[in-house]
Amino acid sequence: MIRTAVILAAGLGSRLGERGKESPKGFLAIDNTPIIEESIGKLIEQGFERIIIGTGHLREFYEGLARKYPIISCGYNEKFARTGSMYTLFTLKDLISEDFILLESDLIYDKSGLKVLNNEVYPDVILASGKTNSNDEVYIEVTDKGFLVTMDKDGGKLSNIYAELVGITRISYPTFQKMCAFSEKIFDIKPKLDYEQALVGIARDVNIYVRKIIDFAWCEIDDAHHLNLARSRVYPKIKERESLQSVKRNILLNPGPATTTDSVKYAQVVPDICPREKEFGDLMDSISVELTGFVANPRKYTTVLFCGSGTAVVEAILSSVIGKDERILIVNNGAYGKRMCQIAEVYNINYVEFKSRNDIPLDLDRLESSLRDSDKRISLLAVVHNETTTGLLNDIQAIGTICKRNNVKFIVDAMSSYAAIPIDMEEMNIGFLAASANKNLQGMPGIGFVIANREMLENTRSIRPRNFYLNLYAQYKNFSETKQMRFTPPVQILYALKQAILESRIEGVEARYARYSKSWRVLIEGIERLGLIYLVPKEYQSRIITAIVDPDIEGYNFNDMHDFFFMNGFTIYPGKLDNANTFRIANIGDITSDDVVSFVTLLEQYLSDIRRGRNANNI
Amino acid sequence: MIRTAVILAAGLGSRLGERGKESPKGFLAIDNTPIIEESIGKLIEQGFERIIIGTGHLREFYEGLARKYPIISCGYNEKFARTGSMYTLFTLKDLISEDFILLESDLIYDKSGLKVLNNEVYPDVILASGKTNSNDEVYIEVTDKGFLVTMDKDGGKLSNIYAELVGITRISYPTFQKMCAFSEKIFDIKPKLDYEQALVGIARDVNIYVRKIIDFAWCEIDDAHHLNLARSRVYPKIKERESLQSVKRNILLNPGPATTTDSVKYAQVVPDICPREKEFGDLMDSISVELTGFVANPRKYTTVLFCGSGTAVVEAILSSVIGKDERILIVNNGAYGKRMCQIAEVYNINYVEFKSRNDIPLDLDRLESSLRDSDKRISLLAVVHNETTTGLLNDIQAIGTICKRNNVKFIVDAMSSYAAIPIDMEEMNIGFLAASANKNLQGMPGIGFVIANREMLENTRSIRPRNFYLNLYAQYKNFSETKQMRFTPPVQILYALKQAILESRIEGVEARYARYSKSWRVLIEGIERLGLIYLVPKEYQSRIITAIVDPDIEGYNFNDMHDFFFMNGFTIYPGKLDNANTFRIANIGDITSDDVVSFVTLLEQYLSDIRRGRNANNI
Repeated sequence: MIRTAVILAAGLGSRLGERGKESPKGFLAIDNTPIIEESIGKLIEQGFERIIIGTGHLREFYEGLARKYPIISCGYNEKFARTGSMYTLFTLKDLISEDFILLESDLIYDKSGLKVLNNEVYPDVILASGKTNSNDEVYIEVTDKGFLVTMDKDGGKLSNIYAELVGITRISYPTFQKMCAFSEKIFDIKPKLDYEQALVGIARDVNIYVRKIIDFAWCEIDDAHHLNLARSRVYPKIKERESLQSVKRNILLNPGPATTTDSVKYAQVVPDICPREKEFGDLMDSISVELTGFVANPRKYTTVLFCGSGTAVVEAILSSVIGKDERILIVNNGAYGKRMCQIAEVYNINYVEFKSRNDIPLDLDRLESSLRDSDKRISLLAVVHNETTTGLLNDIQAIGTICKRNNVKFIVDAMSSYAAIPIDMEEMNIGFLAASANKNLQGMPGIGFVIANREMLENTRSIRPRNFYLNLYAQYKNFSETKQMRFTPPVQILYALKQAILESRIEGVEARYARYSKSWRVLIEGIERLGLIYLVPKEYQSRIITAIVDPDIEGYNFNDMHDFFFMNGFTIYPGKLDNANTFRIANIGDITSDDVVSFVTLLEQYLSDIRRGRNANNI
Repeated sequence: MIRTAVILAAGLGSRLGERGKESPKGFLAIDNTPIIEESIGKLIEQGFERIIIGTGHLREFYEGLARKYPIISCGYNEKFARTGSMYTLFTLKDLISEDFILLESDLIYDKSGLKVLNNEVYPDVILASGKTNSNDEVYIEVTDKGFLVTMDKDGGKLSNIYAELVGITRISYPTFQKMCAFSEKIFDIKPKLDYEQALVGIARDVNIYVRKIIDFAWCEIDDAHHLNLARSRVYPKIKERESLQSVKRNILLNPGPATTTDSVKYAQVVPDICPREKEFGDLMDSISVELTGFVANPRKYTTVLFCGSGTAVVEAILSSVIGKDERILIVNNGAYGKRMCQIAEVYNINYVEFKSRNDIPLDLDRLESSLRDSDKRISLLAVVHNETTTGLLNDIQAIGTICKRNNVKFIVDAMSSYAAIPIDMEEMNIGFLAASANKNLQGMPGIGFVIANREMLENTRSIRPRNFYLNLYAQYKNFSETKQMRFTPPVQILYALKQAILESRIEGVEARYARYSKSWRVLIEGIERLGLIYLVPKEYQSRIITAIVDPDIEGYNFNDMHDFFFMNGFTIYPGKLDNANTFRIANIGDITSDDVVSFVTLLEQYLSDIRRGRNANNI
């Protein structure tokens, strides 16, 4: 899969007149967003992790984009006024080290074109279309097998015209090197060389396939005429075509799996691959490093992937890192703390349960006393960061400090905090952390993972395994030696996770938490306004999930309310507490505070209906 | 998700002249396949599990289709010559019990239309297009919110024309009932009522949304003119549009994950859903029943799903069904038999290893003697059906008989035989069987499952759990009570599995094994012709995977050979034996014997190149 895009954006845009002097062609906007930013959006959706922009004229515009998108880097062609697109591409040679898709900056196009290039079997592919009558055509001639012979703006120079150049081309790294070698020799006499000419120049030596889509929706915007055409005809066509692939949007307010983007959904659709292949090993390796990077330094910490749910990886930690003679203190202030006790129980692990109320913060002094109780000789402590049952956030910074002071290894179940609430494993003294792909990462379920301090993990090697599939050390060891999971991984879920990570990096963990927090504030204000009660005092909440006490209204019934919301595209979640009747609203996933506003509006309607004795589902 | 389609196919096709008398309109062919069969193919790709055809004129053609496709049922409108399409639909009312997509039989269309209807938020949706100039338009007028006002072939009767009817409509069950009620009253005076008129008739009471795709590629074939138009213009356009979504095809010859269809890949792309929802519980329930149905009677046997690899579910069985004082005999004649021993070891389970050579059949007499050895008191036996390391097929019928005779519970790891090699659990006395989604089922990895005799499974309830996540009884119990997996399931992989099961049912397990066997024969013949040696005598092979002895040619190197094949779109697999150097070729997945022919041709080329001392990768 090609994950690098190169955009040529050095041109003067002189045909756009005054407009071209004020801003580069790529910054024309049809629907508020500059066309180059629409293009960048499509590239990100298709999983491109690296976008290199060749700049020249008005470079500062593109450098602004590079500040906005962490995956963009710019390379400057200082001779832009005197050179052509090939020289710009040549300028980028130190930034390019692999196969890439080359795009012109002034294009609007149906994003399926990117997918088509990635799905071709040939390493070098020109995307081409049928007749456009755009007055700026580059015509293409091909061999009988469909490979490039020549291209020219003057159709008369071709023996026959097969198609028109779109300006989106897949170029393998060896071919790029050949283009550079070819051009370097003639830049002196042909400084204005186009990249198209360089492709033609090497077409005798390299098979460059031309993938023609007769009815491809695209347009290059070189002048005012093009802009009008684009606005009135091509752009609506592109939007319509793309809309055929969009997936019905449901607003999931359950605590994960969360609402995902369509691009994460489609990232699952990949050519079949055997997971023992190097390409797939590299994918998992990069996923592992990136997951670590969200919370720790990958040199000191590592991520171990498992095919399984969140509980599976919590079990992987508890069954794998506690020596036969060691004892662990498990904090239980909710269903997930209790679950850790159950896991310890099943393996006959020595554990001490530290019980605490599920609606107020832990008593840290009492916790430390328990650790210090020399009779118990505790060497590990496990806690749930954000208790999904209540939304109560445990203070892992403070607990980590206590662990450090008492020389206790610290295990955190960060299932529903990871990738939203900032965590620094080193600073917080966390040795082992469990999380999964399908909550704040906004990926698909099927992958759980453990992030571990490498040294601590290495030290578990002598612990006798208590199980086979979930043994943490064996899984780690095998992966670090072979870049393979020990057992068949969920291939497609990992591709989706890669996309989810990319989108998480682009948004940023802090910005994501800010978005979630905004939704949470809307929710809390709504709850208060409607006279409902949340279980945990605001200041102790995670801002990720909120447990709301069932309203004391005759006719209230969670299942009815659930069905009412479901019919309206919202999924809500029941409570999970023994001592209080609650329901839960999570504000994670690809949703915004506007969605929560709509939720609150519906909630108001529902409550008002049942107050008036009407069943909302029958209205 | 809508999984029922209704096709109206009773019409006389009189406008097609003589052609219409010989065969119904749906049996016209543009590209060899009758257009209705192309339509059925698209429906299956989109996950439709039930296709109801309303027949009349030349019904025997459609009844032939119903014999070919197990998911088709026909309903006959005996008054077809005197009635219209609504009467045909009305005739089907006993066959229809849920929401459906209604299609006309004489359509060719871009399959994305089906996806669009399924992704709409409204329960009732008419698919519509822009101008077609087909001379047979049904024009649609809508409200300002886009809901149906009226439809008519005479555009003059409309206040304004918004779009044209395609003939693919999403109809909810309540709306269908309203259409029937409306029509029943007027059939006497209007026997020729069209379903369009019935929709218009209820449009005041029901919001029927009109989803317009201006540039939708479709055509109704009512006469010779339409047929020509379809052939020359519309059909190529449809094919081009659909090709934009097709995924690069890799031929995986590794023993799973196997090559999958594009439709299984795309089945992963679904609207987000919380897996605790009823709709998802029903999905898992139907998957469970269908998986059981391939090998046993679902009343006596049940399937327990886990998120995990094949090894995970083998571990689930071994760790969950053996009582503290019980002893198991494990047959080890390959790496997967050995793995079962390792799992038993880690849990301190009492086991006896029965070792046997990996290239010849088991000595069944010796096996039975081992079971009878009264000192050992063995009450369970576990064997791998098809040893993936060698392709050696263990005779589970005979072993099952031995188990029965000795009152021993029988566990089979059928990972790489299930859904290809026919298995009858009851006849073979199998108590517990392990398999996964990503081998012969041609689904995606991430789901393993255990098929168990219900009574035996119930009897494991008193065995103290040895682990948490993989406990078989707990997983079973929870699912049978709640239709939920205990822990977050891999939602998208289950949707893909549902599609893979549908495609497996349509092909049929026996036909699938016949296809695999054909590929295997091509492979074996090729191997023999090229002078290579396979490890296991032909008659003992599974016909699923073949271990081939590394050729004794100077310059042979598995990794080089792998890379050569990989470059050509084929993935091959290394061996996994201590006592022989082999590589492995699996012939499972969505591939045909033609692909294996290509593989053999490439293999011949590779071997000839290295014999001549040339490295095939540098040619």
